[in-house]
Amino acid sequence: MAAVTFRFPYPAAGSAAPDLVAQPVDAPTISVMDAAAERGDGAFETFGIVGGAPQAVRDHLERLRESLAMLELPDPDLPALAETCRRIAARATGDAWLKLVVTRGGMDRAAPSAWAVLADAADTAPLRTDGIAVVTADRGFASDYAAREPWALIGAKTLSYAQNMAAIREAHRRGAGDMLWATSDGVLLEAPTSSLVVRRGSALVTPDPRVGTLHGTTQRAMFRWAEGAGLETAYARLTRADLASADAGWLASSVRGAVPISRVDGSALPIDRARTDEIAAFLRARRD
Amino acid sequence: MAAVTFRFPYPAAGSAAPDLVAQPVDAPTISVMDAAAERGDGAFETFGIVGGAPQAVRDHLERLRESLAMLELPDPDLPALAETCRRIAARATGDAWLKLVVTRGGMDRAAPSAWAVLADAADTAPLRTDGIAVVTADRGFASDYAAREPWALIGAKTLSYAQNMAAIREAHRRGAGDMLWATSDGVLLEAPTSSLVVRRGSALVTPDPRVGTLHGTTQRAMFRWAEGAGLETAYARLTRADLASADAGWLASSVRGAVPISRVDGSALPIDRARTDEIAAFLRARRD
Repeated sequence: MAAVTFRFPYPAAGSAAPDLVAQPVDAPTISVMDAAAERGDGAFETFGIVGGAPQAVRDHLERLRESLAMLELPDPDLPALAETCRRIAARATGDAWLKLVVTRGGMDRAAPSAWAVLADAADTAPLRTDGIAVVTADRGFASDYAAREPWALIGAKTLSYAQNMAAIREAHRRGAGDMLWATSDGVLLEAPTSSLVVRRGSALVTPDPRVGTLHGTTQRAMFRWAEGAGLETAYARLTRADLASADAGWLASSVRGAVPISRVDGSALPIDRARTDEIAAFLRARRD
Repeated sequence: MAAVTFRFPYPAAGSAAPDLVAQPVDAPTISVMDAAAERGDGAFETFGIVGGAPQAVRDHLERLRESLAMLELPDPDLPALAETCRRIAARATGDAWLKLVVTRGGMDRAAPSAWAVLADAADTAPLRTDGIAVVTADRGFASDYAAREPWALIGAKTLSYAQNMAAIREAHRRGAGDMLWATSDGVLLEAPTSSLVVRRGSALVTPDPRVGTLHGTTQRAMFRWAEGAGLETAYARLTRADLASADAGWLASSVRGAVPISRVDGSALPIDRARTDEIAAFLRARRD
Protein backbone atom coordinates (compact mmCIF):
# COMPACT_ATOMS: atom_id res chain seq x y z
CA MET A 1 0.00 0.00 0.00
CA ALA A 2 1.40 3.38 -1.01
CA ALA A 3 1.20 5.99 1.76
CA VAL A 4 -1.66 8.44 1.25
CA THR A 5 -2.75 11.80 2.62
CA PHE A 6 -6.30 12.95 3.35
CA ARG A 7 -6.93 16.69 3.72
CA PHE A 8 -10.34 17.59 5.16
CA PRO A 9 -12.14 20.48 6.83
CA TYR A 10 -11.55 20.48 10.59
CA PRO A 11 -14.61 18.92 12.25
CA ALA A 12 -15.19 21.30 15.15
CA ALA A 13 -17.69 20.27 17.82
CA GLY A 14 -21.08 19.63 16.17
CA SER A 15 -19.66 18.76 12.74
CA ALA A 16 -20.24 15.56 10.83
CA ALA A 17 -17.41 13.37 9.57
CA PRO A 18 -15.95 15.01 6.45
CA ASP A 19 -15.74 13.48 3.01
CA LEU A 20 -12.35 11.97 2.27
CA VAL A 21 -10.26 12.02 -0.88
CA ALA A 22 -6.91 10.24 -0.91
CA GLN A 23 -3.84 11.92 -2.44
CA PRO A 24 -0.29 10.63 -2.77
CA VAL A 25 1.63 11.35 0.44
CA ASP A 26 4.27 13.37 -1.40
CA ALA A 27 1.71 15.53 -3.22
CA PRO A 28 1.80 19.21 -2.26
CA THR A 29 -1.32 19.54 -0.14
CA ILE A 30 -0.58 22.36 2.33
CA SER A 31 0.79 25.89 2.25
CA VAL A 32 4.24 26.54 3.67
CA MET A 33 2.50 29.06 5.92
CA ASP A 34 0.22 26.52 7.51
CA ALA A 35 0.91 26.75 11.25
CA ALA A 36 2.31 23.21 11.17
CA ALA A 37 5.09 24.10 8.75
CA GLU A 38 5.60 27.66 9.94
CA ARG A 39 5.70 27.08 13.72
CA GLY A 40 5.11 23.40 14.56
CA ASP A 41 1.90 24.84 15.99
CA GLY A 42 -0.62 22.04 16.16
CA ALA A 43 -1.21 18.63 17.71
CA PHE A 44 -1.18 15.07 16.46
CA GLU A 45 -1.94 11.48 17.33
CA THR A 46 -0.62 8.32 15.69
CA PHE A 47 -2.91 5.31 15.75
CA GLY A 48 -1.89 1.72 15.21
CA ILE A 49 -4.09 -0.11 12.67
CA VAL A 50 -4.62 -3.86 12.84
CA GLY A 51 -7.14 -5.73 10.73
CA GLY A 52 -8.36 -2.54 9.09
CA ALA A 53 -9.38 -0.93 12.40
CA PRO A 54 -7.71 1.85 14.39
CA GLN A 55 -6.65 1.02 17.94
CA ALA A 56 -7.23 2.94 21.16
CA VAL A 57 -9.36 5.49 19.33
CA ARG A 58 -10.98 6.89 22.47
CA ASP A 59 -7.67 7.32 24.35
CA HIS A 60 -6.00 8.97 21.35
CA LEU A 61 -8.88 11.32 20.62
CA GLU A 62 -9.30 12.31 24.27
CA ARG A 63 -5.60 13.14 24.38
CA LEU A 64 -5.90 15.07 21.13
CA ARG A 65 -8.73 17.09 22.64
CA GLU A 66 -6.55 17.85 25.67
CA SER A 67 -3.63 18.90 23.46
CA LEU A 68 -5.91 21.18 21.43
CA ALA A 69 -7.31 22.70 24.62
CA MET A 70 -3.78 23.45 25.85
CA LEU A 71 -3.11 25.05 22.46
CA GLU A 72 -6.38 27.03 22.78
CA LEU A 73 -7.72 25.59 19.54
CA PRO A 74 -11.45 24.88 19.09
CA ASP A 75 -12.78 21.60 20.46
CA PRO A 76 -13.01 18.85 17.86
CA ASP A 77 -16.04 16.68 17.24
CA LEU A 78 -14.74 13.42 18.63
CA PRO A 79 -17.37 11.14 17.04
CA ALA A 80 -16.66 12.76 13.65
CA LEU A 81 -12.92 12.25 14.10
CA ALA A 82 -13.45 8.68 15.27
CA GLU A 83 -15.54 7.96 12.18
CA THR A 84 -12.86 9.59 10.02
CA CYS A 85 -10.19 7.37 11.54
CA ARG A 86 -12.30 4.25 11.02
CA ARG A 87 -12.97 5.09 7.37
CA ILE A 88 -9.31 5.71 6.70
CA ALA A 89 -8.18 2.62 8.59
CA ALA A 90 -10.55 0.49 6.52
CA ARG A 91 -8.36 1.24 3.49
CA ALA A 92 -5.28 -0.33 5.08
CA THR A 93 -4.17 -3.56 3.43
CA GLY A 94 -2.12 -4.82 6.40
CA ASP A 95 -0.61 -3.53 9.64
CA ALA A 96 -0.46 0.23 9.27
CA TRP A 97 -0.35 3.51 11.13
CA LEU A 98 -2.59 6.55 10.83
CA LYS A 99 -1.33 9.97 11.79
CA LEU A 100 -4.04 12.54 12.53
CA VAL A 101 -2.96 16.21 12.61
CA VAL A 102 -4.77 19.40 13.64
CA THR A 103 -3.01 22.76 13.28
CA ARG A 104 -3.75 26.41 14.02
CA GLY A 105 -4.58 26.82 10.33
CA GLY A 106 -3.38 28.52 7.20
CA MET A 107 -1.55 31.85 7.07
CA ASP A 108 -4.69 33.73 8.16
CA ARG A 109 -5.31 31.24 11.02
CA ALA A 110 -9.04 31.57 10.26
CA ALA A 111 -9.77 27.96 11.17
CA PRO A 112 -7.71 24.91 12.13
CA SER A 113 -6.29 22.73 9.37
CA ALA A 114 -6.72 18.98 9.56
CA TRP A 115 -5.30 16.02 7.73
CA ALA A 116 -4.40 12.39 8.11
CA VAL A 117 -1.72 10.12 6.68
CA LEU A 118 -2.06 6.36 6.27
CA ALA A 119 1.04 4.23 5.73
CA ASP A 120 2.25 0.64 6.15
CA ALA A 121 3.76 -0.24 9.52
CA ALA A 122 7.19 -1.84 9.76
CA ASP A 123 7.57 -5.28 11.32
CA THR A 124 8.19 -4.75 15.04
CA ALA A 125 9.02 -8.36 15.92
CA PRO A 126 12.83 -7.90 15.63
CA LEU A 127 12.72 -4.96 18.07
CA ARG A 128 10.78 -7.04 20.56
CA THR A 129 13.32 -9.85 20.30
CA ASP A 130 16.47 -7.74 20.50
CA GLY A 131 15.19 -5.05 22.83
CA ILE A 132 16.48 -1.52 22.71
CA ALA A 133 19.40 0.14 24.49
CA VAL A 134 18.59 3.54 25.98
CA VAL A 135 20.71 6.35 27.36
CA THR A 136 19.37 8.91 29.78
CA ALA A 137 19.63 12.68 29.46
CA ASP A 138 18.40 15.76 31.26
CA ARG A 139 15.30 17.22 29.58
CA GLY A 140 16.06 20.51 31.31
CA PHE A 141 12.99 21.22 33.39
CA ALA A 142 12.34 20.25 37.01
CA SER A 143 9.61 17.87 38.15
CA ASP A 144 7.40 20.74 39.37
CA TYR A 145 7.70 22.74 36.12
CA ALA A 146 4.72 21.35 34.18
CA ALA A 147 2.34 22.15 37.06
CA ARG A 148 3.93 25.53 37.77
CA GLU A 149 4.00 26.85 34.17
CA PRO A 150 1.01 25.36 32.35
CA TRP A 151 1.42 27.72 29.37
CA ALA A 152 4.61 25.79 28.48
CA LEU A 153 2.59 22.95 26.87
CA ILE A 154 4.39 20.16 28.73
CA GLY A 155 2.09 17.18 28.20
CA ALA A 156 0.59 18.47 24.94
CA LYS A 157 1.46 16.32 21.93
CA THR A 158 2.42 19.19 19.65
CA LEU A 159 4.06 19.14 16.23
CA SER A 160 7.15 20.88 17.67
CA TYR A 161 9.30 17.75 17.75
CA ALA A 162 12.69 19.04 16.57
CA GLN A 163 14.16 18.45 20.04
CA ASN A 164 12.61 14.97 20.19
CA MET A 165 14.27 14.08 16.89
CA ALA A 166 17.57 15.57 18.09
CA ALA A 167 17.38 13.45 21.23
CA ILE A 168 17.10 10.28 19.15
CA ARG A 169 20.12 11.33 17.04
CA GLU A 170 22.06 11.97 20.26
CA ALA A 171 21.12 8.50 21.54
CA HIS A 172 22.43 6.97 18.32
CA ARG A 173 25.65 8.96 18.69
CA ARG A 174 26.04 7.43 22.14
CA GLY A 175 25.58 3.95 20.69
CA ALA A 176 22.01 3.47 21.93
CA GLY A 177 18.71 3.06 20.14
CA ASP A 178 16.70 5.63 22.03
CA MET A 179 16.92 8.32 24.67
CA LEU A 180 15.14 8.33 28.00
CA TRP A 181 14.60 11.80 29.44
CA ALA A 182 14.77 12.76 33.11
CA THR A 183 13.87 16.01 34.80
CA SER A 184 16.67 18.25 36.03
CA ASP A 185 16.01 16.88 39.53
CA GLY A 186 16.39 13.30 38.36
CA VAL A 187 12.83 12.03 37.85
CA LEU A 188 12.47 9.81 34.78
CA LEU A 189 10.04 11.10 32.14
CA GLU A 190 9.65 9.37 28.78
CA ALA A 191 11.43 8.73 25.50
CA PRO A 192 11.02 11.15 22.58
CA THR A 193 8.24 9.08 21.00
CA SER A 194 7.28 6.54 23.67
CA SER A 195 6.42 6.04 27.34
CA LEU A 196 8.47 4.23 29.98
CA VAL A 197 6.92 1.28 31.79
CA VAL A 198 8.89 -0.82 34.27
CA ARG A 199 8.10 -3.98 36.16
CA ARG A 200 9.05 -4.17 39.80
CA GLY A 201 8.09 -7.60 41.09
CA SER A 202 4.36 -7.96 40.57
CA ALA A 203 3.73 -4.31 39.62
CA LEU A 204 3.91 -2.31 36.39
CA VAL A 205 4.98 1.27 37.13
CA THR A 206 5.09 4.31 34.83
CA PRO A 207 6.08 7.95 35.44
CA ASP A 208 3.27 10.14 36.72
CA PRO A 209 2.26 12.32 33.72
CA ARG A 210 2.02 15.33 36.05
CA VAL A 211 5.80 15.28 36.28
CA GLY A 212 5.90 16.29 32.61
CA THR A 213 5.07 13.53 30.15
CA LEU A 214 2.34 12.62 27.71
CA HIS A 215 -0.11 10.13 29.16
CA GLY A 216 0.69 7.16 26.96
CA THR A 217 -2.13 5.38 25.18
CA THR A 218 -0.09 2.16 24.85
CA GLN A 219 1.03 2.45 28.48
CA ARG A 220 -2.63 2.62 29.46
CA ALA A 221 -3.33 -0.49 27.43
CA MET A 222 -0.42 -2.23 29.17
CA PHE A 223 -1.99 -1.33 32.50
CA ARG A 224 -5.28 -2.87 31.36
CA TRP A 225 -3.38 -6.01 30.39
CA ALA A 226 -1.64 -6.02 33.78
CA GLU A 227 -4.92 -5.77 35.64
CA GLY A 228 -6.19 -8.77 33.72
CA ALA A 229 -2.96 -10.64 34.42
CA GLY A 230 -3.10 -10.09 38.17
CA LEU A 231 -0.35 -7.47 38.32
CA GLU A 232 -0.60 -4.22 40.22
CA THR A 233 -0.20 -0.90 38.40
CA ALA A 234 1.05 2.46 39.63
CA TYR A 235 1.93 5.96 38.50
CA ALA A 236 5.01 7.04 40.43
CA ARG A 237 8.19 9.10 40.51
CA LEU A 238 10.92 6.87 39.16
CA THR A 239 14.65 7.57 39.29
CA ARG A 240 17.53 6.18 37.28
CA ALA A 241 18.29 3.92 40.26
CA ASP A 242 14.72 2.60 40.18
CA LEU A 243 15.14 1.70 36.52
CA ALA A 244 18.56 0.13 37.02
CA SER A 245 17.13 -2.15 39.71
CA ALA A 246 13.84 -2.92 37.88
CA ASP A 247 12.94 -6.45 36.87
CA ALA A 248 12.17 -5.28 33.33
CA GLY A 249 11.39 -2.14 31.35
CA TRP A 250 9.63 -1.25 28.12
CA LEU A 251 9.25 1.73 25.81
CA ALA A 252 5.58 1.83 24.82
CA SER A 253 4.17 3.52 21.72
CA SER A 254 1.36 2.96 19.24
CA VAL A 255 3.53 2.11 16.28
CA ARG A 256 6.25 -0.02 17.93
CA GLY A 257 4.15 -1.46 20.76
CA ALA A 258 5.99 -2.42 23.97
CA VAL A 259 9.70 -2.73 23.19
CA PRO A 260 11.82 -4.24 25.95
CA ILE A 261 14.69 -2.11 27.21
CA SER A 262 17.90 -4.16 26.99
CA ARG A 263 20.40 -1.66 28.42
CA VAL A 264 20.29 1.62 30.35
CA ASP A 265 23.33 3.89 30.12
CA GLY A 266 25.46 0.88 29.21
CA SER A 267 24.24 -1.51 31.93
CA ALA A 268 22.10 -4.53 31.07
CA LEU A 269 18.46 -4.69 32.09
CA PRO A 270 16.69 -8.07 32.11
CA ILE A 271 14.32 -8.69 29.19
CA ASP A 272 11.05 -10.25 30.35
CA ARG A 273 10.37 -12.32 27.24
CA ALA A 274 7.23 -14.02 28.47
CA ARG A 275 5.49 -10.81 29.45
CA THR A 276 6.76 -8.99 26.36
CA ASP A 277 5.05 -11.62 24.21
CA GLU A 278 1.87 -11.57 26.29
CA ILE A 279 1.70 -7.78 26.08
CA ALA A 280 2.31 -7.85 22.31
CA ALA A 281 -0.56 -10.29 21.85
CA PHE A 282 -2.81 -8.18 24.06
CA LEU A 283 -1.96 -4.96 22.23
CA ARG A 284 -2.50 -6.57 18.86
CA ALA A 285 -5.89 -7.99 19.84
CA ARG A 286 -7.21 -4.56 20.82
CA ARG A 287 -10.12 -3.05 18.99
CA ASP A 288 -11.45 0.28 20.12
CA MET B 1 1.81 43.23 -2.69
CA ALA B 2 0.20 39.82 -2.17
CA ALA B 3 2.33 37.45 -0.13
CA VAL B 4 4.13 34.87 -2.27
CA THR B 5 5.95 31.58 -1.77
CA PHE B 6 9.07 30.39 -3.58
CA ARG B 7 9.89 26.67 -3.46
CA PHE B 8 13.39 25.79 -4.68
CA PRO B 9 15.94 22.97 -4.49
CA TYR B 10 18.12 23.29 -1.37
CA PRO B 11 21.41 24.86 -2.40
CA ALA B 12 23.92 22.69 -0.52
CA ALA B 13 27.53 23.87 -0.40
CA GLY B 14 28.82 24.26 -3.94
CA SER B 15 25.42 24.91 -5.52
CA ALA B 16 24.43 27.93 -7.55
CA ALA B 17 21.45 30.11 -6.69
CA PRO B 18 18.29 28.26 -7.80
CA ASP B 19 15.72 29.54 -10.27
CA LEU B 20 12.70 31.09 -8.59
CA VAL B 21 9.01 30.85 -9.44
CA ALA B 22 6.50 32.73 -7.28
CA GLN B 23 3.30 31.03 -6.16
CA PRO B 24 0.43 32.38 -4.05
CA VAL B 25 1.26 31.98 -0.36
CA ASP B 26 -1.84 29.91 0.29
CA ALA B 27 -1.18 27.54 -2.61
CA PRO B 28 -0.47 23.95 -1.58
CA THR B 29 3.27 23.70 -2.16
CA ILE B 30 4.51 21.10 0.34
CA SER B 31 3.58 17.62 1.51
CA VAL B 32 2.07 17.20 4.96
CA MET B 33 4.97 14.80 5.57
CA ASP B 34 7.64 17.40 4.95
CA ALA B 35 9.71 17.48 8.15
CA ALA B 36 8.52 21.05 8.78
CA ALA B 37 4.88 20.06 9.02
CA GLU B 38 5.44 16.62 10.50
CA ARG B 39 7.94 17.50 13.25
CA GLY B 40 8.83 21.21 13.17
CA ASP B 41 12.20 19.80 12.10
CA GLY B 42 14.07 22.52 10.28
CA ALA B 43 15.44 26.02 10.73
CA PHE B 44 14.43 29.47 9.57
CA GLU B 45 15.48 33.09 9.39
CA THR B 46 13.29 36.15 8.86
CA PHE B 47 14.92 39.09 7.10
CA GLY B 48 13.69 42.67 7.11
CA ILE B 49 13.48 44.21 3.64
CA VAL B 50 13.85 47.94 3.10
CA GLY B 51 14.19 49.54 -0.31
CA GLY B 52 14.05 46.20 -2.08
CA ALA B 53 17.11 44.84 -0.24
CA PRO B 54 17.35 42.27 2.55
CA GLN B 55 19.00 43.42 5.77
CA ALA B 56 21.69 41.73 7.85
CA VAL B 57 22.06 38.98 5.27
CA ARG B 58 25.43 37.77 6.54
CA ASP B 59 24.34 37.60 10.20
CA HIS B 60 21.12 35.78 9.30
CA LEU B 61 22.77 33.29 6.98
CA GLU B 62 25.62 32.57 9.41
CA ARG B 63 23.04 31.88 12.11
CA LEU B 64 21.08 29.68 9.70
CA ARG B 65 24.23 27.70 9.00
CA GLU B 66 24.75 27.26 12.75
CA SER B 67 21.14 26.14 13.23
CA LEU B 68 21.48 23.64 10.38
CA ALA B 69 24.74 22.33 11.84
CA MET B 70 23.05 21.79 15.22
CA LEU B 71 20.28 19.94 13.36
CA GLU B 72 22.94 17.89 11.50
CA LEU B 73 21.64 19.03 8.12
CA PRO B 74 24.01 19.57 5.18
CA ASP B 75 25.82 22.90 4.99
CA PRO B 76 24.11 25.44 2.75
CA ASP B 77 25.82 27.44 0.04
CA LEU B 78 25.74 30.84 1.70
CA PRO B 79 26.48 32.91 -1.44
CA ALA B 80 23.69 31.06 -3.28
CA LEU B 81 21.26 31.72 -0.43
CA ALA B 82 22.34 35.36 -0.23
CA GLU B 83 21.71 35.77 -3.94
CA THR B 84 18.33 34.05 -3.56
CA CYS B 85 17.36 36.47 -0.78
CA ARG B 86 18.45 39.46 -2.86
CA ARG B 87 16.46 38.31 -5.89
CA ILE B 88 13.34 37.76 -3.80
CA ALA B 89 13.71 41.04 -1.92
CA ALA B 90 13.95 42.93 -5.20
CA ARG B 91 10.31 41.98 -5.83
CA ALA B 92 9.10 43.78 -2.69
CA THR B 93 7.06 46.91 -3.37
CA GLY B 94 7.59 48.46 0.08
CA ASP B 95 8.77 47.48 3.56
CA ALA B 96 8.52 43.72 3.72
CA TRP B 97 9.82 40.60 5.36
CA LEU B 98 11.32 37.48 3.86
CA LYS B 99 11.18 34.18 5.67
CA LEU B 100 13.74 31.59 4.56
CA VAL B 101 13.14 27.97 5.64
CA VAL B 102 15.24 24.81 5.39
CA THR B 103 13.82 21.48 6.62
CA ARG B 104 14.98 17.89 6.91
CA GLY B 105 13.08 17.16 3.74
CA GLY B 106 10.08 15.28 2.44
CA MET B 107 8.78 11.98 3.83
CA ASP B 108 11.87 10.09 2.61
CA ARG B 109 14.21 12.78 4.07
CA ALA B 110 16.40 12.27 1.00
CA ALA B 111 17.46 15.94 0.86
CA PRO B 112 16.52 19.12 2.72
CA SER B 113 13.52 21.11 1.53
CA ALA B 114 13.84 24.86 1.10
CA TRP B 115 11.44 27.71 0.51
CA ALA B 116 10.94 31.39 1.13
CA VAL B 117 7.95 33.62 1.74
CA LEU B 118 7.80 37.33 0.91
CA ALA B 119 5.11 39.51 2.50
CA ASP B 120 4.42 43.14 3.35
CA ALA B 121 5.61 44.34 6.75
CA ALA B 122 3.24 46.06 9.15
CA ASP B 123 3.94 49.63 10.26
CA THR B 124 6.07 49.40 13.41
CA ALA B 125 5.96 53.10 14.34
CA PRO B 126 3.02 52.74 16.79
CA LEU B 127 4.83 49.99 18.71
CA ARG B 128 7.92 52.19 19.00
CA THR B 129 5.79 55.06 20.34
CA ASP B 130 3.71 53.07 22.81
CA GLY B 131 6.33 50.56 23.83
CA ILE B 132 5.41 47.04 24.90
CA ALA B 133 4.57 45.64 28.32
CA VAL B 134 6.28 42.34 29.12
CA VAL B 135 5.77 39.71 31.79
CA THR B 136 8.51 37.31 32.82
CA ALA B 137 8.20 33.54 33.07
CA ASP B 138 10.42 30.57 33.76
CA ARG B 139 11.57 28.88 30.54
CA GLY B 140 12.31 25.77 32.59
CA PHE B 141 16.00 25.14 32.01
CA ALA B 142 18.93 26.36 34.10
CA SER B 143 21.62 28.74 32.87
CA ASP B 144 24.14 25.90 32.44
CA TYR B 145 21.76 23.66 30.47
CA ALA B 146 22.55 24.79 26.92
CA ALA B 147 26.26 24.15 27.43
CA ARG B 148 25.72 20.89 29.30
CA GLU B 149 23.23 19.30 26.86
CA PRO B 150 24.12 20.54 23.36
CA TRP B 151 21.84 17.96 21.68
CA ALA B 152 18.84 19.92 23.06
CA LEU B 153 19.10 22.56 20.29
CA ILE B 154 18.99 25.54 22.67
CA GLY B 155 20.20 28.38 20.46
CA ALA B 156 19.10 26.81 17.19
CA LYS B 157 16.33 28.74 15.43
CA THR B 158 14.15 25.73 14.67
CA LEU B 159 10.61 25.57 13.33
CA SER B 160 9.42 24.05 16.62
CA TYR B 161 7.81 27.22 17.91
CA ALA B 162 4.57 25.96 19.48
CA GLN B 163 5.88 26.86 22.94
CA ASN B 164 6.99 30.30 21.73
CA MET B 165 3.50 30.99 20.42
CA ALA B 166 1.97 29.69 23.67
CA ALA B 167 4.21 32.06 25.63
CA ILE B 168 2.86 35.03 23.69
CA ARG B 169 -0.73 33.91 24.33
CA GLU B 170 0.10 33.60 28.03
CA ALA B 171 1.54 37.14 28.04
CA HIS B 172 -1.68 38.43 26.48
CA ARG B 173 -3.70 36.57 29.12
CA ARG B 174 -1.65 38.38 31.76
CA GLY B 175 -2.41 41.73 30.13
CA ALA B 176 1.02 42.19 28.53
CA GLY B 177 2.18 42.37 24.94
CA ASP B 178 5.02 39.88 25.12
CA MET B 179 6.75 37.42 27.39
CA LEU B 180 10.32 37.59 28.59
CA TRP B 181 11.82 34.25 29.54
CA ALA B 182 14.24 33.60 32.36
CA THR B 183 16.16 30.46 33.24
CA SER B 184 15.04 28.40 36.23
CA ASP B 185 17.89 30.04 38.19
CA GLY B 186 16.71 33.54 37.32
CA VAL B 187 18.89 34.64 34.40
CA LEU B 188 16.98 36.60 31.77
CA LEU B 189 16.95 35.02 28.31
CA GLU B 190 14.87 36.47 25.46
CA ALA B 191 11.30 36.90 24.26
CA PRO B 192 9.68 34.23 22.06
CA THR B 193 10.55 36.08 18.84
CA SER B 194 13.00 38.81 19.91
CA SER B 195 16.13 39.57 21.93
CA LEU B 196 16.40 41.62 25.11
CA VAL B 197 18.69 44.67 25.11
CA VAL B 198 18.90 47.02 28.10
CA ARG B 199 20.66 50.31 28.67
CA ARG B 200 22.47 50.80 31.95
CA GLY B 201 23.93 54.29 31.93
CA SER B 202 26.28 54.48 28.97
CA ALA B 203 26.21 50.78 28.15
CA LEU B 204 23.92 48.52 26.10
CA VAL B 205 23.76 45.05 27.63
CA THR B 206 22.20 41.84 26.30
CA PRO B 207 22.01 38.30 27.71
CA ASP B 208 24.99 36.13 26.86
CA PRO B 209 23.74 33.68 24.18
CA ARG B 210 25.61 30.87 25.93
CA VAL B 211 23.01 31.06 28.71
CA GLY B 212 20.45 29.77 26.20
CA THR B 213 19.27 32.28 23.61
CA LEU B 214 19.56 32.92 19.91
CA HIS B 215 22.27 35.43 19.09
CA GLY B 216 20.07 38.26 17.83
CA THR B 217 20.83 39.80 14.46
CA THR B 218 19.04 43.03 15.36
CA GLN B 219 20.72 43.07 18.77
CA ARG B 220 24.08 42.85 16.99
CA ALA B 221 23.07 45.78 14.78
CA MET B 222 22.11 47.75 17.89
CA PHE B 223 25.57 47.06 19.31
CA ARG B 224 27.12 48.40 16.10
CA TRP B 225 24.96 51.51 16.45
CA ALA B 226 26.04 51.84 20.10
CA GLU B 227 29.71 51.62 19.21
CA GLY B 228 29.24 54.44 16.71
CA ALA B 229 27.29 56.45 19.29
CA GLY B 230 30.00 56.21 21.94
CA LEU B 231 28.18 53.68 24.15
CA GLU B 232 29.77 50.58 25.60
CA THR B 233 28.34 47.14 24.83
CA ALA B 234 28.37 43.95 26.84
CA TYR B 235 27.07 40.38 26.91
CA ALA B 236 26.20 39.56 30.50
CA ARG B 237 24.00 37.61 32.90
CA LEU B 238 21.01 39.82 33.63
CA THR B 239 18.42 39.24 36.34
CA ARG B 240 14.89 40.56 36.76
CA ALA B 241 16.33 43.07 39.26
CA ASP B 242 18.83 44.27 36.63
CA LEU B 243 15.99 44.89 34.21
CA ALA B 244 13.79 46.61 36.80
CA SER B 245 16.61 49.04 37.57
CA ALA B 246 17.70 49.56 33.93
CA ASP B 247 17.56 52.98 32.30
CA ALA B 248 15.71 51.51 29.31
CA GLY B 249 15.02 48.19 27.61
CA TRP B 250 14.10 47.00 24.12
CA LEU B 251 12.88 43.83 22.43
CA ALA B 252 14.87 43.54 19.22
CA SER B 253 13.82 41.57 16.13
CA SER B 254 14.15 41.84 12.38
CA VAL B 255 10.50 42.53 11.65
CA ARG B 256 9.61 44.86 14.54
CA GLY B 257 13.03 46.47 15.02
CA ALA B 258 13.87 47.71 18.54
CA VAL B 259 10.62 48.08 20.50
CA PRO B 260 10.94 49.89 23.84
CA ILE B 261 9.78 47.94 26.89
CA SER B 262 7.25 50.06 28.78
CA ARG B 263 6.47 47.75 31.71
CA VAL B 264 7.99 44.66 33.28
CA ASP B 265 5.69 42.48 35.40
CA GLY B 266 3.44 45.48 35.96
CA SER B 267 6.12 48.03 36.90
CA ALA B 268 6.98 50.89 34.57
CA LEU B 269 10.32 51.01 32.77
CA PRO B 270 11.53 54.34 31.32
CA ILE B 271 11.22 54.66 27.53
CA ASP B 272 14.34 56.19 26.00
CA ARG B 273 12.63 57.99 23.12
CA ALA B 274 15.71 59.68 21.71
CA ARG B 275 17.74 56.50 21.48
CA THR B 276 14.73 54.48 20.27
CA ASP B 277 14.45 56.88 17.32
CA GLU B 278 18.19 56.87 16.64
CA ILE B 279 18.26 53.09 16.69
CA ALA B 280 15.23 52.89 14.38
CA ALA B 281 16.92 55.18 11.87
CA PHE B 282 20.15 53.18 12.09
CA LEU B 283 18.35 49.85 11.63
CA ARG B 284 16.38 51.17 8.68
CA ALA B 285 19.47 52.55 6.94
CA ARG B 286 21.24 49.18 7.01
CA ARG B 287 22.09 47.43 3.77
CA ASP B 288 24.00 44.22 3.88
